[in-house]
Amino acid sequence: MSRQFLAEGLELSGGDYAIAGVVAVVALIALVIGYFLLKEVLATGQGTAKMQDIARAVQEGAAAYLKRQRNTLSIFGVVVFLLLFALPADDWNERIGRSIFFLFGAGFSFTIGYLGMWLATRANLRVAAASREQGGRETAMRVAFRTGGAVGMFTVGLGLFGAAVVVLVYTGHAPKVLEGFGFGAALIAMFMRVGGGIFTKAADVGADLVGKVEQNIPEDDPRNAATIADNVGDNVGDCAGMAADLFESYAVTLVAALILGSTAFGADGLIFPLIVPAIGVITAVIGVYITKARANESGLTTINRSFYISAIISAVLCTIAAFVFLPSSFAEFGPEYANDGNPAVIAFVAVLIGIVLAGLILRLTGYYTGTEHGPVKNVGKTSETGAATVILSGISVGFESAVYTAVVIGAAVFGAYLLGGAVALFAVALAGTGLLTTVGVIVAMDTFGPVSDNAQGIAEMSGDVDENAAQTLTELDAVGNTTKAITKGIAIATAVLAATALFGSYQDSITKALSGIGTTAGGVKSFIDTIVSPNTLVGVMIGAAVVFMFSGLAVNAVSRAAGAVVYEVRRQFREIAGIMEGTTRPEYGKVVDIVTRDSLRELATPGLLAVFAPIAVGFGLGTGALAGYLAGAIATGTLMAIFLANSGGAWDNAKKLVEDGNHGGKGSEAHAATVIGDTVGDPFKDTAGPAINPLIKVMNLVSVLIAPAIVQFSVGPDASFGVRLAIALVALAIIVVAIVVSKRRSTVISDSPASTQEPAKTA
Amino acid sequence: MSRQFLAEGLELSGGDYAIAGVVAVVALIALVIGYFLLKEVLATGQGTAKMQDIARAVQEGAAAYLKRQRNTLSIFGVVVFLLLFALPADDWNERIGRSIFFLFGAGFSFTIGYLGMWLATRANLRVAAASREQGGRETAMRVAFRTGGAVGMFTVGLGLFGAAVVVLVYTGHAPKVLEGFGFGAALIAMFMRVGGGIFTKAADVGADLVGKVEQNIPEDDPRNAATIADNVGDNVGDCAGMAADLFESYAVTLVAALILGSTAFGADGLIFPLIVPAIGVITAVIGVYITKARANESGLTTINRSFYISAIISAVLCTIAAFVFLPSSFAEFGPEYANDGNPAVIAFVAVLIGIVLAGLILRLTGYYTGTEHGPVKNVGKTSETGAATVILSGISVGFESAVYTAVVIGAAVFGAYLLGGAVALFAVALAGTGLLTTVGVIVAMDTFGPVSDNAQGIAEMSGDVDENAAQTLTELDAVGNTTKAITKGIAIATAVLAATALFGSYQDSITKALSGIGTTAGGVKSFIDTIVSPNTLVGVMIGAAVVFMFSGLAVNAVSRAAGAVVYEVRRQFREIAGIMEGTTRPEYGKVVDIVTRDSLRELATPGLLAVFAPIAVGFGLGTGALAGYLAGAIATGTLMAIFLANSGGAWDNAKKLVEDGNHGGKGSEAHAATVIGDTVGDPFKDTAGPAINPLIKVMNLVSVLIAPAIVQFSVGPDASFGVRLAIALVALAIIVVAIVVSKRRSTVISDSPASTQEPAKTA
Repeated sequence: MSRQFLAEGLELSGGDYAIAGVVAVVALIALVIGYFLLKEVLATGQGTAKMQDIARAVQEGAAAYLKRQRNTLSIFGVVVFLLLFALPADDWNERIGRSIFFLFGAGFSFTIGYLGMWLATRANLRVAAASREQGGRETAMRVAFRTGGAVGMFTVGLGLFGAAVVVLVYTGHAPKVLEGFGFGAALIAMFMRVGGGIFTKAADVGADLVGKVEQNIPEDDPRNAATIADNVGDNVGDCAGMAADLFESYAVTLVAALILGSTAFGADGLIFPLIVPAIGVITAVIGVYITKARANESGLTTINRSFYISAIISAVLCTIAAFVFLPSSFAEFGPEYANDGNPAVIAFVAVLIGIVLAGLILRLTGYYTGTEHGPVKNVGKTSETGAATVILSGISVGFESAVYTAVVIGAAVFGAYLLGGAVALFAVALAGTGLLTTVGVIVAMDTFGPVSDNAQGIAEMSGDVDENAAQTLTELDAVGNTTKAITKGIAIATAVLAATALFGSYQDSITKALSGIGTTAGGVKSFIDTIVSPNTLVGVMIGAAVVFMFSGLAVNAVSRAAGAVVYEVRRQFREIAGIMEGTTRPEYGKVVDIVTRDSLRELATPGLLAVFAPIAVGFGLGTGALAGYLAGAIATGTLMAIFLANSGGAWDNAKKLVEDGNHGGKGSEAHAATVIGDTVGDPFKDTAGPAINPLIKVMNLVSVLIAPAIVQFSVGPDASFGVRLAIALVALAIIVVAIVVSKRRSTVISDSPASTQEPAKTA
Repeated sequence: MSRQFLAEGLELSGGDYAIAGVVAVVALIALVIGYFLLKEVLATGQGTAKMQDIARAVQEGAAAYLKRQRNTLSIFGVVVFLLLFALPADDWNERIGRSIFFLFGAGFSFTIGYLGMWLATRANLRVAAASREQGGRETAMRVAFRTGGAVGMFTVGLGLFGAAVVVLVYTGHAPKVLEGFGFGAALIAMFMRVGGGIFTKAADVGADLVGKVEQNIPEDDPRNAATIADNVGDNVGDCAGMAADLFESYAVTLVAALILGSTAFGADGLIFPLIVPAIGVITAVIGVYITKARANESGLTTINRSFYISAIISAVLCTIAAFVFLPSSFAEFGPEYANDGNPAVIAFVAVLIGIVLAGLILRLTGYYTGTEHGPVKNVGKTSETGAATVILSGISVGFESAVYTAVVIGAAVFGAYLLGGAVALFAVALAGTGLLTTVGVIVAMDTFGPVSDNAQGIAEMSGDVDENAAQTLTELDAVGNTTKAITKGIAIATAVLAATALFGSYQDSITKALSGIGTTAGGVKSFIDTIVSPNTLVGVMIGAAVVFMFSGLAVNAVSRAAGAVVYEVRRQFREIAGIMEGTTRPEYGKVVDIVTRDSLRELATPGLLAVFAPIAVGFGLGTGALAGYLAGAIATGTLMAIFLANSGGAWDNAKKLVEDGNHGGKGSEAHAATVIGDTVGDPFKDTAGPAINPLIKVMNLVSVLIAPAIVQFSVGPDASFGVRLAIALVALAIIVVAIVVSKRRSTVISDSPASTQEPAKTA
C-alpha cells in the first residue's frame, strides 16, 4: 500500500539537510556526554590492592577474549563483505556504499561491545569499592547506573550518527546503503551475543557444578579455578554481547524506519525517523542524570522511575515534533490522498504506541521475573516438592509470559498498522522508533546487572568487603536480574517491529526486481504466495524450525563447553595440592583459555545457520516460501526468546528468594532444587534467548538483500532452475557440514582422556 | 489451483457406489476382526486372585473417570452442536447432516477411547499373568500386541465406515458433512487427550514425588495411596486418550482427502481416498497377525518388522489401485489439462510419500528416544554431572529431533505439492492417506506401551510375579516408551498433512462465500492477504502464541493436580497408621476421586482456548489474519509437539539406562538426576505434547467452519464491523474468563489448609 508514494523522489531539501545535520550533531553530543560519564566512573575509588588484582585478571581475560573474537569475526566479515558486493544493486554508488557501511555497522557494533566490556570491567571494581564506604549504597548504585549511562550514550550516539551520515551522504540511495549498515550491526551483534553467551554460561555452569554442587564451596570462592572465567564471562556476555545487541536493535529499527519512511514519503520520510531518536537522546540524558537512589526504596523502583519520567518526556517531545515537522494532511502528495488522514496524528500515535509498548513490557517482565510478585514466589514455593516441580513451574512462567508479551507486541503492530492507513508499514516502523527513544535508559538499566554481579564477585573473592556492603551488592544483583530480563523483552519487541517493517522492504525488493524484468503488479501478487499456499506453509514451518535448531545448538554448546570447564576444575582440585586449603592459587588462566577457545569455536554453527538458512530456503523454495520462513521465524522466535529469558529470570530470582531465607533457606533441599532450576535457566536466559533477537534481524536482512537475486534467477532472461538449486544446495551443504562438525566435536569431548579418566565425582 | 475442476459435479456413478459400498464392507470386516482379536485377548489366563483384585480396582477407577468425562463432554457437545447448526450452510440437508455427523464423529471418538481403555484394563492383567508362565515372554508380547491390534481394527474400522457412509448417503454434500464428522472426532479426542493426559501425569508425578523421592519406596509399591490412580491414569490417558486421538487423526486426514479429492476430481475424488485406507485395513490385519516375538531379538525389532512389512504391502497394493482406478491422463477433464501429468502416477507417488514419511518418522523417533542410540546414551551420561545437565541435554535432544522431524514432514508436504501440479493440495491429502495405511499397526504399537506398563504395575503390586517375569515386563515397558514416541510423531505428521490440505478447503470456503455475494476471483486474492502483510504476521504470532499457551496450561494443570495428590498421599502416610509397615491398605479411591475431579476441571481452559481463539482472531482481525494464525499454530505446534514428546521419551529412557546399571545404577546420584528428568518429561510427553495434535485439527476445522460467517459479516449486505467485533469480544471474553478461573484455582489450592499445615516434607 505504502508503495503508492514511491514516485515522490528522494531529493532532500535544504531544510532537510539542516535537520539531518542537527541530528548528527545531537548524536555527537551524546558521544561527548558518554565520555564525561565514563570519566566520572573512572574517577571513583578503586578499593584495596587485592580487589584491584582480581579486577585486573578479569580485565585481561575479557580483553584477550574479545581480541581473539575480533580476529575470528574479521575473517567472517571480509567473506560477507565480498558476498555482499556480489549481490545485485541499482548502481555502483549503492553497491559500494552498501558494502562500506556494512563494515561501519559491523565495526560500530564491535566497538560498542568492546567499550561496554572495557568500562564494565573497570566499573565493577569501583562499585565494589564504593559499597565499602559510608553511604555506600547510593554511591555504588550511582556508579553502576552511570556506567550503564555511558554505554547507553555511546550506543545511541553511534547508531544515530551512522544513520544520519548515511542520509546526508547518500540521500536517494540511503535505503540500500542502510541495509548494509543494519546488516553489519546485526551480524556482529549476533556473533557477540552467541559467543559471549556461550562463554559466560559455560564458565558459570562449570564453576557452579564443581564448586557449589560437588565441593560445596560458595559462589565466587577464590579456590574455584573457574571463578575468574565466570567473572570474565559476565563482562564478555552480559556487557559486550548485550551492548552490541542493543546497538544493533537501535540501528536496525532505525534503518527499517528510514527505509519505510523514504518509501512512504520520499525524502520527508528520511527526516522524521531521525528526529524521534534524537529526542530519545535528550530524554536518555535526563533519565541517566535523574536516577538517584533513595534510602527506603528498592533499586528497581529507582530505575523504573527514571524510565517512566524519560518515557513521558519523550512522548511529549515527539508529539510536538510530529506537529511541527509533518504536514497535517496527505493532500500535498496528491489530491486523491486528501482523505487518508493526518500524517502528524498518525506519526505521533505510532510513536506513542512504541513508547507505551516499552512501558508494558517493563511491567509484564517485572511481574513475571521480580521476586515480589506471584510467579517467582510460586516457583520458589514449588522448591518444596523438589527440582522437577521447580523446572516445570519455571517453564510454565516462561510460556505464559511469552504469550502475553507476544500478544502485547502483536497488538502494537496491529494497532500501528490499522492506524497507518496508506502508510501502514511506516507507522509500524515509527512505533519502533518510539521504542528506541527508551534505549538509552534501557542500556543503562541492563548494564547495571552484570556490573553489580561482578562487583559482588570481586568483593567475595577479595574478602575485603564487610557484611553490610555485601548486602548492598546482593540487593543490586537481584535488581539486575530483573532489569536484564526487561532489556531482553524490549530488544525482542524491536526485532518484531523492525522485522514487520522490513517485510514491506522485502516485498519492495521483489517488486522492483520484477519490474526491472518487466513483470506487472499482478505478477508480483502471485509471486509472493498467499499464506494458504503449501509452499508458504512449509516455509513457515522451516522458519520456526530454525529457531528451535538455533536454540538447541546454543544450549548444547554451553553444555559442551561447561563440560570442559568441569573436567579442568576437577583436574586442578585433584592434581594441584593446597587449593582446597587456600594455600595454593588455582590456575585461573587455563580455564579462561579453555572457555575462550571453546566459545569461539562453538559460535560458528549457529552463525552459519542464521546466514545460510534463508539463502537455502529462498533460492531452493522461492520468494513465497522465504516470506513464510521469515514469518515463522519471527513468530516462533519472539515466543521462544521471551520464554527462555523469563523462565531463566524466574528461576534465578526464585533461587534468590530461597537464599533470602524462604522455604528453608540456603543449604536446604529447597535451595538445592532452585540451584538446579537456575543452572537450567542459565543458558536459556543468557545464551539462547538473547541471541534470537539479532538472529531474527540477520535473517530478515539477508532475505531483503538476496531477494533481487532470487527474482533474477526465477524469471526473465537469467531464469535458471539449475543456478537456484546450486546456490540452495551450497547453502544447505554449509549448514549440514557445520552441524556435523559440531556433532563430531561433541563426541570428541565426551571421549577425551579427561572424561574417561574421570567419570565419577571427586567429591 | 485445484479449484479448476470444481465444475465437474459430484454425482457418483454406479461403479462409484459399488466401490464405496465395498469399502464400507471392508470397514465392517475390520470391526469383526477387531472383535475376534478382543475375544482372543480376553480368553487368556487372568493370574492370581490378588492380581485380579488390583486389576478390578483399576478397571473401576478408569470406567468411573470416563463416565464422568462423558457427562461433562456431553454438555459441551450439545452446545457445540447448536452453534454448528447456527453456522451458514448451502442448504438444510447439508446443515442437518453436518450437525448429525458431528455427533457421530464425537460419539465414535469417545467410543474408541472407552473401548481402548476397557480392553487395556483387562489386557494388562492377562499380560502380567502370561509373563508368569513358561515361555511367557512370547505370550505376553502376543497378548499386548493383539490388544493393540483389536483397538487398531476398531479405530480404522469406525473411521473408514463413517466416511464411507457419508459418501454413500450425501454424495455431493459429503464434503460439508465430513467437516462436521471430522470436527466431532477431533474435538472429543482433544478433550480426552487433555483430560486423560492430566489424569495420568498428575497421578504419576504425585505418586513419584511422595513415593520414590520422599519415602524412598519403589514405583507401584502398594503402600503408596496413589498407585491405583497411577495405573488408572495409564489407561485413561495412554489408552483411552491415545485411541481417541488416533481415531481422530484417521478421520480428519481421511476427511481432508475426501474434501480435497472432490474439489479436484469431482465424484472420482471421493472414491480413491477411500480405497487407500481400505487397503490399509488389509495390511494392518496382516501386520497384527505376523507379529511374533523371536527369542533373541528386542521387542522393538519385532514390532518394526511388522510395520515395515505392512508398509511395503500397502505401497504395492496402493500402486496397483492407482493404476486400476485412476485415469492415465487429465485429458478427460478437458483437453486443456492433457499435459498436466498422469493422475495415476501422481496419486501413487503421493501415497508412497506418505508411507515413506511414516517409516522415516519411525526411524528418527527410534533414534532420538531409543536406549541403544547416541542421544539417550548422551542424556544418560550427563546424569553424572547432575539433574541440571540432564534437563539441558534432554531439551537439546527434543529441539534437535523436532527440527529434523519437522523438516522431513515439510519435505513430504513440499514434495507432494510439487508433484501434484494442478491437483497439488489433493496430492498433499493423498500423502496423508498414505500415512493412514499404517495407522492400524501404529495403534497396535502404541497400545503396547501402556498395557505393558500396567502389567508391570499389577505384577509389582501383587508381588505374585517372579524375577524372570518382572524382567520380561520391564523390557516390554522400555519398548513401549519408544513406540509411544513414534506414535506421537506419526500423529503430528497426519496433523500437518491434514491441516495443509484443509488450508485449501479454508480458501475454498472463502471463495464460495465471496462468490455468493458476487465478489470476483481477484477480490478473493486480496481477501486472503499475502504473508508479508502485518495483518497476517500478527496472525502467525498469535497462532504460535496459542500453542505456547496451551502447552503452558497443560503443564500447569498437571502441576496443580499433582500437588493435590502429593498432599493427599502425605496425609494418608501421616494419619493412617500402618501404611508404611504394609499392615493397613491406603485409601486408593480417595486419590482416584481427587484426580478425576481435578483433571475434568482442568481440561476446560485449554479446550475453550482451542475452540474460541480462532473465532476471536477470525472475526476480530479477518480471514487473512486467521490464515496466518493457522499457519503459525501448525508450524509451532508441530515443533512443540515433537519437542515435548521426544525430550520426554529421551528422559524416560535415560532413566531406564541408569536403572539398567549404567552411570552408577539405581539409587545413585545419577539415578536421582534422571528421575528428575523423567518427572519433568512426564507432562511434556503425555499431557501437553500429544494434545497439540488434536488441537491443530480442532483449530483448523473451526476455521473452515466459521470462514463463511466471517465473510458474510465482512462484505456484502450483512457486512457489519459491529457484529464481527461483538463476536470476537465474546470469544475473547470466554477465553479470558477461563484463564482467570484456572489462575484463581491455582491460588486456592496453594493456600489450602493442607498446604499450610504441611509445608515441609514428611520424610
